[in-house]
Amino acid sequence: MIAGSVALDTVKTPFGRVENALGGSATFAGIACSFFSKPLISSVVGSDFPKKYFDLLASKGLDLSGLIVKNGKTFHWEGEYGVDLNVANTLRTDLNVLSDFKPELPDFYKNADFVFLGNIDPDVQLFVLSELKKKPVFVLADTMNHWIGSKRERVLEVVKKADVCLMNDAEARQLFRTNSIVKAGKEILKLDSKVAIIKKGEHGVVMFSDSGFFSCPGYPLEDVLDPTGAGDSFGGSLIGYLAKTKDFSEENFRRGLVYASSIASFNAEDFSVKKLCSISFSDVEKRFNEFLDFVKF
Amino acid sequence: MIAGSVALDTVKTPFGRVENALGGSATFAGIACSFFSKPLISSVVGSDFPKKYFDLLASKGLDLSGLIVKNGKTFHWEGEYGVDLNVANTLRTDLNVLSDFKPELPDFYKNADFVFLGNIDPDVQLFVLSELKKKPVFVLADTMNHWIGSKRERVLEVVKKADVCLMNDAEARQLFRTNSIVKAGKEILKLDSKVAIIKKGEHGVVMFSDSGFFSCPGYPLEDVLDPTGAGDSFGGSLIGYLAKTKDFSEENFRRGLVYASSIASFNAEDFSVKKLCSISFSDVEKRFNEFLDFVKF
Repeated sequence: MIAGSVALDTVKTPFGRVENALGGSATFAGIACSFFSKPLISSVVGSDFPKKYFDLLASKGLDLSGLIVKNGKTFHWEGEYGVDLNVANTLRTDLNVLSDFKPELPDFYKNADFVFLGNIDPDVQLFVLSELKKKPVFVLADTMNHWIGSKRERVLEVVKKADVCLMNDAEARQLFRTNSIVKAGKEILKLDSKVAIIKKGEHGVVMFSDSGFFSCPGYPLEDVLDPTGAGDSFGGSLIGYLAKTKDFSEENFRRGLVYASSIASFNAEDFSVKKLCSISFSDVEKRFNEFLDFVKF
Repeated sequence: MIAGSVALDTVKTPFGRVENALGGSATFAGIACSFFSKPLISSVVGSDFPKKYFDLLASKGLDLSGLIVKNGKTFHWEGEYGVDLNVANTLRTDLNVLSDFKPELPDFYKNADFVFLGNIDPDVQLFVLSELKKKPVFVLADTMNHWIGSKRERVLEVVKKADVCLMNDAEARQLFRTNSIVKAGKEILKLDSKVAIIKKGEHGVVMFSDSGFFSCPGYPLEDVLDPTGAGDSFGGSLIGYLAKTKDFSEENFRRGLVYASSIASFNAEDFSVKKLCSISFSDVEKRFNEFLDFVKF
């Protein structure tokens, strides 16, 4: 089960511009997850949400019983990336129907074994957990600088309650008030995280655990067309992989991170969900094998 | 043979301060190189250069026949690192005897098979190459933002003439006027480089070649006490490893990069050359093996 936003994004990068394209953390995570498992989606859209987007999400096998349609307009984000595609410049955020979003989970969602809390208000993330009928097998959460700045204590509670909470290196530094990623990793482990996963954009992702340290490089893309949603795709892939394999060993986390990196890198190769929707699992496998070669010595 | 600077450094980091400590690109590179090969050092110091530093360099097996002593003061660099240890803030640069440095190579230096051109003025780097009696087997060069900004064409000539020219990601972006590291790597290969090696500080190092892409993670240091000289140590280790193995295959470059990363990470664990002088080759081997585990999946 994936709870997060479904959005209409207007995005400009040095490579082009899209208007009202399908976006949102639950969208990217859901499609990415579908390479491994069929996710239940919990989110909200407005009455303006195009039927073709419903159809697209359904065609990927996503269960949309928990995608509520409310009177009003769909959450709209407008952003721009400059030459440095690591930094998003938000031009406009219209929360619309997302502003008072309280997930309404269909009954069968409440028994989900694997839960991904997309990058939304930590209060909403904690509310989703409180709605569940039984303790899930695995909870993966995501967060961002905005919430760390405005609701640090609640984010720390999410980190504590989730089995793993994803963040990037800048966010880890901000949350634990240290410049050392290694120290931040140790702090995450102290909060009962199974492993500490810190994303580093083009530099890949690292994982700290009680038994070791793992580093997966960033896939060497010549051009990043649009990085929007790459982090969400990463999280969605990982929860999908864990739900499929049900193996929480260090070795399996490592494989999961490489699959997630592979899918996130495809995400960045085109605007919105275009690339993600045009690849097959054999493309993902192929990239997974490329990673094997990237680090061999 | 290693040509570069020998300096007295005054360095302040959040972890302490040293005054007139042994530094300079030829110093770090020479000591790092000595784990694999015995380097010939070409540099210049002033009459104030302490005997204990001569003794220390000699004790590491460095040939100092080309370390000229001139009347005047030794090159002095004063810098400070803030919380972000990736960025050096230069407080003062007194070139002193280095200001009109023209390497005087003893005759037997001119037959060197393996040459490392440390991070000095590209005109001096090209002068050193012109002094050689025969074409070396392998020339490794290093450069920095300062020279790319002030002498771009000469730096490009160094890149062309060397077999490999090291730079970090910001410098590669600056030199090739692109934001894409992958594009910069391709540009380097176009300039007849055997491989394109781009250092990324705490994020490790990547290598592009005609046959593939390699990524070596940064060693996960909890604290970087002083990053000064880590890049020079990296270069010195690599030329030493190549001189020892005489193997220019992709596989051997990969192993060389991991050895160089291992030694550079030790460099950053203490001020000046302290740590580098206190470790043995078995410590380096141990860290090499840790890298094997860091990337295994």
